[in-house]
Amino acid sequence: MTSFPIETLRFDDNGLIPAIVQDVNNQTVLMLGFMNHDSLLRTVNEGKVCFWSRSRQKFWLKGETSGMFLLVRSIRVNCENNSLLILAEPIGPTCHTGHESCYYREAQESGEWAEIAPVLTDPEALYGKK
Amino acid sequence: MTSFPIETLRFDDNGLIPAIVQDVNNQTVLMLGFMNHDSLLRTVNEGKVCFWSRSRQKFWLKGETSGMFLLVRSIRVNCENNSLLILAEPIGPTCHTGHESCYYREAQESGEWAEIAPVLTDPEALYGKK
Repeated sequence: MTSFPIETLRFDDNGLIPAIVQDVNNQTVLMLGFMNHDSLLRTVNEGKVCFWSRSRQKFWLKGETSGMFLLVRSIRVNCENNSLLILAEPIGPTCHTGHESCYYREAQESGEWAEIAPVLTDPEALYGKK
Repeated sequence: MTSFPIETLRFDDNGLIPAIVQDVNNQTVLMLGFMNHDSLLRTVNEGKVCFWSRSRQKFWLKGETSGMFLLVRSIRVNCENNSLLILAEPIGPTCHTGHESCYYREAQESGEWAEIAPVLTDPEALYGKK
């Protein structure tokens, strides 16, 4: 993508905008992260989802360690220009736990979270032993 | 739902957590909003998505004006306990523009946003004439 309407976006007081990532093939919502101006431009230019890590205050190129990149297929914006929906092709499981999606737990009537999706890849295979 | 594991969640410095809403039937991502502790409990107890309006600093029961409620079917949490994915049954178009989803515009190579989804309902029918 050679040009991107970044000047139309409304970043928050911390210079961030939330970005949802959805699997372009099966529509699974994979994760949510925050981008700043530069990580969004990097996402656009490199075609791989790159967040801004709020805890580490640095670029967070998703997949940099694990190889599980999110390849950008479409970038959409909401009606208020303050959040993004990125349709992406995931190379492998998105979650660091080895699940397809980070949203693998569902609230139950019992008041607990239950895992409702399988681990696809052993996390040690993604990140090495700790 | 009589019980909900709200104490496990990590709200941000402003007491908020982002919540993605996805259509439980066709998997369309409809919108993203923020919830505080009380709006999340209201969402759980009433079964209708209720955000916290950051601009107005009050409850924002989605559909209160238009009737286009989002009926909660499942609440999921991410691996870091700091964002939610709510699967919901939408009564009608979610966006105030009359589109099914708030994410109805896509970035084009030309550097502009293009509408890629139709208006389903005239906004005047949802909110009355301005």
